[in-house]
Amino acid sequence: MPDSIEKWDYFELTLNAHTSGNPFLDVTFEAEFTHQHRSLKVSGFYDGDNTFRVRFMPDVEGDWRYVTVSNLDALNGQTGEFICTPASKGNHGPVHVTNTFHFSYDDGTPYYPFGTTCYAWTHQGEALEEQTLKTLKEASFNKMRMCVFPKFYPFNENEPVYYPFERNAAGEHDFTRFNPEFFRHFEQRVGELCQMGIEADIIVFHPYDHWGYSRMDAESDYRYLRYLIARLAAYRNVWWSLANEYDFMLDRKPMEQWDEYFRILLAKDPYNHLRSIHNGDTEKNYDHTKVGVTHVCIQNWDTKQVKRWRRDYQKPIINDELEYEGDIVFPWGNISAREEVHRIWIMVTNGGYAGHGETYMHPQDILWWSKGGVLHGESWRRVAFLRKLMEEGPVGGLTPMEDSWVWTRVSGGKNGDYRLIYFGEHQPLSWIEGLPDSPDYEIDIIDTWEMTIRPGTRRIMKPFKAITGANPEPPRYELILPGKPFQAVRIRKR
Amino acid sequence: MPDSIEKWDYFELTLNAHTSGNPFLDVTFEAEFTHQHRSLKVSGFYDGDNTFRVRFMPDVEGDWRYVTVSNLDALNGQTGEFICTPASKGNHGPVHVTNTFHFSYDDGTPYYPFGTTCYAWTHQGEALEEQTLKTLKEASFNKMRMCVFPKFYPFNENEPVYYPFERNAAGEHDFTRFNPEFFRHFEQRVGELCQMGIEADIIVFHPYDHWGYSRMDAESDYRYLRYLIARLAAYRNVWWSLANEYDFMLDRKPMEQWDEYFRILLAKDPYNHLRSIHNGDTEKNYDHTKVGVTHVCIQNWDTKQVKRWRRDYQKPIINDELEYEGDIVFPWGNISAREEVHRIWIMVTNGGYAGHGETYMHPQDILWWSKGGVLHGESWRRVAFLRKLMEEGPVGGLTPMEDSWVWTRVSGGKNGDYRLIYFGEHQPLSWIEGLPDSPDYEIDIIDTWEMTIRPGTRRIMKPFKAITGANPEPPRYELILPGKPFQAVRIRKR
Repeated sequence: MPDSIEKWDYFELTLNAHTSGNPFLDVTFEAEFTHQHRSLKVSGFYDGDNTFRVRFMPDVEGDWRYVTVSNLDALNGQTGEFICTPASKGNHGPVHVTNTFHFSYDDGTPYYPFGTTCYAWTHQGEALEEQTLKTLKEASFNKMRMCVFPKFYPFNENEPVYYPFERNAAGEHDFTRFNPEFFRHFEQRVGELCQMGIEADIIVFHPYDHWGYSRMDAESDYRYLRYLIARLAAYRNVWWSLANEYDFMLDRKPMEQWDEYFRILLAKDPYNHLRSIHNGDTEKNYDHTKVGVTHVCIQNWDTKQVKRWRRDYQKPIINDELEYEGDIVFPWGNISAREEVHRIWIMVTNGGYAGHGETYMHPQDILWWSKGGVLHGESWRRVAFLRKLMEEGPVGGLTPMEDSWVWTRVSGGKNGDYRLIYFGEHQPLSWIEGLPDSPDYEIDIIDTWEMTIRPGTRRIMKPFKAITGANPEPPRYELILPGKPFQAVRIRKR
Repeated sequence: MPDSIEKWDYFELTLNAHTSGNPFLDVTFEAEFTHQHRSLKVSGFYDGDNTFRVRFMPDVEGDWRYVTVSNLDALNGQTGEFICTPASKGNHGPVHVTNTFHFSYDDGTPYYPFGTTCYAWTHQGEALEEQTLKTLKEASFNKMRMCVFPKFYPFNENEPVYYPFERNAAGEHDFTRFNPEFFRHFEQRVGELCQMGIEADIIVFHPYDHWGYSRMDAESDYRYLRYLIARLAAYRNVWWSLANEYDFMLDRKPMEQWDEYFRILLAKDPYNHLRSIHNGDTEKNYDHTKVGVTHVCIQNWDTKQVKRWRRDYQKPIINDELEYEGDIVFPWGNISAREEVHRIWIMVTNGGYAGHGETYMHPQDILWWSKGGVLHGESWRRVAFLRKLMEEGPVGGLTPMEDSWVWTRVSGGKNGDYRLIYFGEHQPLSWIEGLPDSPDYEIDIIDTWEMTIRPGTRRIMKPFKAITGANPEPPRYELILPGKPFQAVRIRKR
């Protein structure tokens, strides 16, 4: 009986081979996986202790065969087969772009990203990492932005448990020799997120570093990226985020190098996982129209620009740093919970998506945004509430309302007969724009902060003579609203 | 003994003359006023009942003489003199631009505009107009945006008490014949504002009209503007605002006509009163770099753009419609009081200015923004508080802080050693940017909503190793803040 693997899980082939040189440099090793007329080439990798592995994520049920190719005899020409069985409940496959501006899992289930950020959570040791996972079980995030490399930055002064490269006694790295223990640990965390239905938005490079990981030469960068792909691409929940704040590394990694990373991902990731790159300076967005970029990952506090980004890039927009809820000294990490929720609602109701973050001062410097731990703020529950609303809505995301100047001031999105209008800082006592004239609609009034939903009431509006004349025919209806800020309206056909 | 007139009050010469035709069209009448080597030509006007008047506001103390010139013998060659005496307390003269981005009165007293809008308040009848004046006495506004013409618009369906032109029994206007009663009433209100220290920002044209005032031909427009100048320019508190929402009238008044209005003001207003023009669509700012424009009057909810406007126009910026506090159905009139105060603080701390407005639903449609009456909201008191702070600060306005990316997210302005930092939606527990290192400064923490001011405390900051190393020399100080939104900090040299 051949092995059986659930669709979108991964098959792993392990082979042993001894090599006298540097197995990370000297050994080529890949496998070709074939189902009927379809075959994919997948890179293998060295995992230490004379062990080589190749991982493959099948996306079609049925029989798969493989054959290995290597410059080492022990790894060459090995064949085998396995059966790909149906995906179990909760396994929807990887996420891809759908309908230009949105996402869905490969099984067609819509995916609305409501992520959070814990940049360095996998570098904090067992106790804190387990606490982070526990928190994630209780929260409702479905994406995690996380760096491969550890972070050296304010509130991040601790050394990691594992280092990604071999180090000698003097602490000098050998960038040609990966530390398999580091990557096994990182993979374990990615796999645990996968089990919880959380996409791992893996940040490949970042500038906050005192180990030299952001200053490796180009060849070492490319080798590292290929190694990451070989190890991690078979995890269905992997997204590639080439950088946190690529523009802060242009002194070390010029623009053509960033383009080359995208080309490596395009060439080496057989599953075409999502690919993005994240700016630091709000004036220095990457050119997200480039073909390697699947979706726009942006840092910008000015969320009301979302319609412009949609227009400019024609790809899904995720604003993953619209500033974090918190109280630290840095302005990117000290907005109020209300403001955090407000900005996320603006992004989503205008047909974009947004990421959560939290940076409250902590006596041991355990800030969620970097180290994980527990959530201290008030926005995360409201994000969960909004996610639920979106998932209860029609399939696919929202298209921003654009038929009137009103929607430059108030946020509104639609999908077929469905409307989600967000008033934010506006507090009208009644509303008319974007409402259906027919009674065949259910209208709910949503308090985005209190997380309440109650049926809305309409009444015939007192006409504005200067606009409609004294007795407009047919009469116009207005929706009664509570006259306080941070309200929303949901309109659904009965 | 010749008459005596206080500086910046006006001298009025009244002459009687009978004319059989249309005195508004047929009679030319002006006077030249001379003090030593200086002389100014001033247009006179017909005030009905065979009465002609010419008004003159002297700006230099001492003897002034005049001689009239007219095509009517009775109005020609009349001479006289008067003495200009020192200005009394509270009379600072007209307001002009100073230091590129700011304003002061002619006597050098700084003027920080904290205005409000009651578009049609002079058209509401004695009782309501007196109530408006009473409210203004209690509030702290020092500028009023007000239309000459009445307004036809939602919540404005009443006819005015007076019409600006003669009307026949059928209600048809004769645009060649002004109604002196209308203008006498309007002047009275301008004069009453002047006595209260309130600048009258007089809106010459606006589109909200069912009488035809926005659709007169160009010649009638020019005649009307010249008549306004002749009647009103001698009031020291007059500002000319050529339009509310000029871009909504481009179908009726093409761009060259707007330029011509500015040329008429430049030619006919001997006192060079402030001149501006106000957009409707936020994408359709007038080209405020044009020479006739003394300062930028803008409508834009996105107050964080103020530094861009300063850079683009190099003139004082007043955002007079950053949306109004209220709860009406239109998004320009339903932001929360907190948001109104927030936007005004952003404008001011970034070296601009802002106008207040209020649009709460009212059973008799008496909304402050148009009809006046009483204030119902909560922002006006906070505007008064901010005005007081500005007036307690150093002479001249603020220059925005620009030396760090921090100031793209948090608002800060400076003037010499003085700093005013506004955190808005940010709620840090401590702060370092823009603080002096020396102890010779008084630092206050201001709650912009609660209107409290209390001394701030500084402490040596725990260093961020990743930025400064473990023991920076000299140590850096941080200011302790309350960790809640809508706070500000004032820094003054002892």
